[in-house]
Amino acid sequence: MSSKKIAIVMGSDSDWPIMQQAADFIDAMQIEYEAKVVSAHRTPEFMFEFAKNAHQNYDVIIAGAGGAAHLPGMIASLTHLPVIGVPIKSSNSIDGWDSLLSILQMPNGVPVATVALNAAKNAGILACQILALNNTALSEKLIAYKNEMKASVLEKKLS
Amino acid sequence: MSSKKIAIVMGSDSDWPIMQQAADFIDAMQIEYEAKVVSAHRTPEFMFEFAKNAHQNYDVIIAGAGGAAHLPGMIASLTHLPVIGVPIKSSNSIDGWDSLLSILQMPNGVPVATVALNAAKNAGILACQILALNNTALSEKLIAYKNEMKASVLEKKLS
Amino acid sequence: MSSKKIAIVMGSDSDWPIMQQAADFIDAMQIEYEAKVVSAHRTPEFMFEFAKNAHQNYDVIIAGAGGAAHLPGMIASLTHLPVIGVPIKSSNSIDGWDSLLSILQMPNGVPVATVALNAAKNAGILACQILALNNTALSEKLIAYKNEMKASVLEKKLS
Amino acid sequence: MSSKKIAIVMGSDSDWPIMQQAADFIDAMQIEYEAKVVSAHRTPEFMFEFAKNAHQNYDVIIAGAGGAAHLPGMIASLTHLPVIGVPIKSSNSIDGWDSLLSILQMPNGVPVATVALNAAKNAGILACQILALNNTALSEKLIAYKNEMKASVLEKKLS
Amino acid sequence: MSSKKIAIVMGSDSDWPIMQQAADFIDAMQIEYEAKVVSAHRTPEFMFEFAKNAHQNYDVIIAGAGGAAHLPGMIASLTHLPVIGVPIKSSNSIDGWDSLLSILQMPNGVPVATVALNAAKNAGILACQILALNNTALSEKLIAYKNEMKASVLEKKLS
Amino acid sequence: MSSKKIAIVMGSDSDWPIMQQAADFIDAMQIEYEAKVVSAHRTPEFMFEFAKNAHQNYDVIIAGAGGAAHLPGMIASLTHLPVIGVPIKSSNSIDGWDSLLSILQMPNGVPVATVALNAAKNAGILACQILALNNTALSEKLIAYKNEMKASVLEKKLS
Amino acid sequence: MSSKKIAIVMGSDSDWPIMQQAADFIDAMQIEYEAKVVSAHRTPEFMFEFAKNAHQNYDVIIAGAGGAAHLPGMIASLTHLPVIGVPIKSSNSIDGWDSLLSILQMPNGVPVATVALNAAKNAGILACQILALNNTALSEKLIAYKNEMKASVLEKKLS
Amino acid sequence: MSSKKIAIVMGSDSDWPIMQQAADFIDAMQIEYEAKVVSAHRTPEFMFEFAKNAHQNYDVIIAGAGGAAHLPGMIASLTHLPVIGVPIKSSNSIDGWDSLLSILQMPNGVPVATVALNAAKNAGILACQILALNNTALSEKLIAYKNEMKASVLEKKLS
Repeated sequence: MSSKKIAIVMGSDSDWPIMQQAADFIDAMQIEYEAKVVSAHRTPEFMFEFAKNAHQNYDVIIAGAGGAAHLPGMIASLTHLPVIGVPIKSSNSIDGWDSLLSILQMPNGVPVATVALNAAKNAGILACQILALNNTALSEKLIAYKNEMKASVLEKKLS
Repeated sequence: MSSKKIAIVMGSDSDWPIMQQAADFIDAMQIEYEAKVVSAHRTPEFMFEFAKNAHQNYDVIIAGAGGAAHLPGMIASLTHLPVIGVPIKSSNSIDGWDSLLSILQMPNGVPVATVALNAAKNAGILACQILALNNTALSEKLIAYKNEMKASVLEKKLS
Repeated sequence: MSSKKIAIVMGSDSDWPIMQQAADFIDAMQIEYEAKVVSAHRTPEFMFEFAKNAHQNYDVIIAGAGGAAHLPGMIASLTHLPVIGVPIKSSNSIDGWDSLLSILQMPNGVPVATVALNAAKNAGILACQILALNNTALSEKLIAYKNEMKASVLEKKLS
Repeated sequence: MSSKKIAIVMGSDSDWPIMQQAADFIDAMQIEYEAKVVSAHRTPEFMFEFAKNAHQNYDVIIAGAGGAAHLPGMIASLTHLPVIGVPIKSSNSIDGWDSLLSILQMPNGVPVATVALNAAKNAGILACQILALNNTALSEKLIAYKNEMKASVLEKKLS
Repeated sequence: MSSKKIAIVMGSDSDWPIMQQAADFIDAMQIEYEAKVVSAHRTPEFMFEFAKNAHQNYDVIIAGAGGAAHLPGMIASLTHLPVIGVPIKSSNSIDGWDSLLSILQMPNGVPVATVALNAAKNAGILACQILALNNTALSEKLIAYKNEMKASVLEKKLS
Repeated sequence: MSSKKIAIVMGSDSDWPIMQQAADFIDAMQIEYEAKVVSAHRTPEFMFEFAKNAHQNYDVIIAGAGGAAHLPGMIASLTHLPVIGVPIKSSNSIDGWDSLLSILQMPNGVPVATVALNAAKNAGILACQILALNNTALSEKLIAYKNEMKASVLEKKLS
Repeated sequence: MSSKKIAIVMGSDSDWPIMQQAADFIDAMQIEYEAKVVSAHRTPEFMFEFAKNAHQNYDVIIAGAGGAAHLPGMIASLTHLPVIGVPIKSSNSIDGWDSLLSILQMPNGVPVATVALNAAKNAGILACQILALNNTALSEKLIAYKNEMKASVLEKKLS
Repeated sequence: MSSKKIAIVMGSDSDWPIMQQAADFIDAMQIEYEAKVVSAHRTPEFMFEFAKNAHQNYDVIIAGAGGAAHLPGMIASLTHLPVIGVPIKSSNSIDGWDSLLSILQMPNGVPVATVALNAAKNAGILACQILALNNTALSEKLIAYKNEMKASVLEKKLS
């Protein structure tokens, strides 16, 4: 059983309203996480240190960034942990295309598990799916979540 | 310790030359995998059955498809396992944009861990990174792979 | 003469304000329809069952979805009825490009008759055009609709 | 029972290698068709006459064109028959984007049932799906086609 | 000396706020024009008649349209007059890309002189530049317009 | 009657195989032209001088360029003649998008009559359409050209 | 030691709210600058004269423009000074793509140092980085700026 | 007078055929440079060390990379020297769009002077333009280069 947790990092505190959706899901699954601002471009040394040591504290890293979004890929270059990237449609982004391509199009050797634009919730779910491979209780919670989602759709009425 | 393996599925056997790069990496890490053609559009019942039962046989699923690429997302809708999507620039694709967006842009609730266009090797690495959370030997192999990659770059000479 | 009707399905009830434009046109043509939420990703079993049995209840299916929009294509994979796809520019869509390409770019063997982004009204018209091949009264109503549209343009004055 | 047939028209004879895939499928379903070159831009009067009278000779029209592809939409403006549009990636097209958007993005009131880029085969299938609503034998052939497609995928072996 | 005028046509009266910028410039140059709604898709016969007879009444045609914008190209197919196309970013357009490509990407043989998205004023200037080849007074007004534009920029102060 | 001619200029002699299609059409219409290399970026002074004096020698200017294609727009800023721009998909262009947008998207006040990517022939036709407003013989040749084009399409047979 | 300064030019005074961010940074670094409106398309002669003489008054030129943005590239064609281009998402721009490509995609021989869309502040920083190669005090200020930026990120708390 | 040189770095030795065009220009200007492979993703520690110490050895850094191209931006985050970025259309790139946006769209605070896709020669010219601010001989060579370029265009004949 792992006592490690999920790290949620982002390039700017202005990304937090989006990234918080990952935190909220992970919270609801009763998994621990730590969230912090780690900027590849403004705090490269701190990013470096964070990523190099991440395996001592975390099992999975969720990293969100916008524009020329280098944070997820740079963390992935410095750790062998799975890194989940969240492209953020920030104010300086060209409709999100730059965020998306900067995170997704990693060269062979250094993957980033990319989710949809602004889809921090899906990053949280994916992180839990990964941890659930070794955590039966979590696995059951994810199955329950899927079932609730299904039930909520099935009862929708169109007026 | 898990005795399960990685599934590598693809929408068409014409995707195999790309998807084989995932298989080759997983092989090199001495992890077992099964590869098969599962078409969301041409064998939907088989896809359905495969995905519903996947958790009994596999820990991680890698799914590659091109064009309107529904295979990774549909599998993700039917399992709580982590699903890794490989957008393939197939002959019927518009420069890969359709493959990429059809796989990446999943709605909240149903993530697909998307890698770069044609980056099946990265899908293999990501699958191993996930399994390595609970497999120290594999974790060490991944670290060794990263080190070899580094060494091979450092010794490059520009003529 | 057919006693079947048109099905109007959509991935989320938030798509209804758009999809209702199909319903309204079909209503005006005095053709019966049924509208419901069928999510490929959140209710895959229900989608499966709906699509497999659709030919017993319907002649034509209109399916609307946004983002990685798999609903129209997956229904088309499970029925031999004509399926009309409406790409929806939902809040999680990248300017509609993902919706459009996920629906349009189906592989050979499994067509989806795609209409313009958000053009649910056109989906309704197209469904009626299909039914009119075997319904003279409907055919005359469609001709009348075209004539009214023409007359309304011809009387426009630019101030 | 209808004695009418399917029209397959295209903006240039250079589109025939693509459009022939529609013809071949329709042939295999033992449905009659007529194929001809009808250019919206070079033979507008002939296009006009063809489209205005189409309902006397045909049930469904398949129209393929590339670049600023106006043929499908202009035919749709002149007939109440269902019109299926095939965007063609011709030599003067910008990677097919112009063909695709010129055909798909029709205004409300005048739908074109658009298929994927170069997917003339799917246009042929869609035309048959429409005719099959009133032709049980054709309907059975389409079901058989779907089953053969499925069987051919299921027997694929990855070497 | 020509007694003909400029025609300003548009696919919908909702395009008038944009197209009026052409009219205003032409007015300021003291050239006559006629503006009317001519829809390629909703009034194809009227469009046909308008375009076939245009050379009897006009020297230059300015045509604006949005979405799958076929009006400028269809008019150009039916007249030997110069046709200026204004792509309009209408509400049903995908950020203007469909309007722009549908108007610009005409096949060889049938040119449309396309101006920037929503740039109806430039269409008006271009029409006047064309007429000025045979109208010295107009030519002098265009030179004066250029000079005023220059003077107005040169006197700008940045606070 | 004008004794002036058409200027055909291009940013590089490597554009000549495309631009020659304008020259060939103009030749066939028995109109005089001059073709030369005028680079906005490499010979700005010569471009300046050419454009400032163009009205003394020419009636219409056709300018082709690729990449960040500033030649047509800069000439248009320096003359009141109609300027026709040909976006060229040169080797340094991103699929032609840069050429196209750099030429088309001129600000209000300074139009460039843009034709399709690589469509130099259409630029030649457009130039002749403009000159034909004041040249009945040319007008008749253009009508004849349209008729030949039509006839050649009508006699096409699909094998 | 240089007594020259930085020129900040822009195509329209409506670009000033963006371009002022360059001015503000340069001010904060205590470097002199001059800002003025220089329009390639509306004041080409003034632009020409400005660019030809720029090396007498300035060391670095920052030029911002939107749409078919020719100002940075035309200045670069007329001077051997480093020219920094700022693509501006102006009201007549297609989501900034035209501005960006018109400035960035310069042919070999005539570079423009392009920064991100609307990133005038970065243009100011880059201009200072260039001047700092020969100005130790400025170099120290830039290092201090980087350190302050780092410190401000490190103290961020996510609530 | 500076005894430092220009660094030319690239993410992979497969980028050298492109990047060598920078080296060749710099050579022709008789300026010293060092070229080496520095991969942000495969040798992050080496990249870090290189960038942190770059100001001791170099005045300007030219960095080329393709796909999710993080090298130029990460170097810029670690040095106060001017960094010139060359987006490379590598085999794993989506038509160069990912390379271009990953390099260009840097957040405020950390500029990268981006040149056109594959335009390594322009990166070399820009680096020399920067050094020439403090090197009169180099400045004269750049002026001579511009003049030769101009002369070579002016003597072009179109056959």
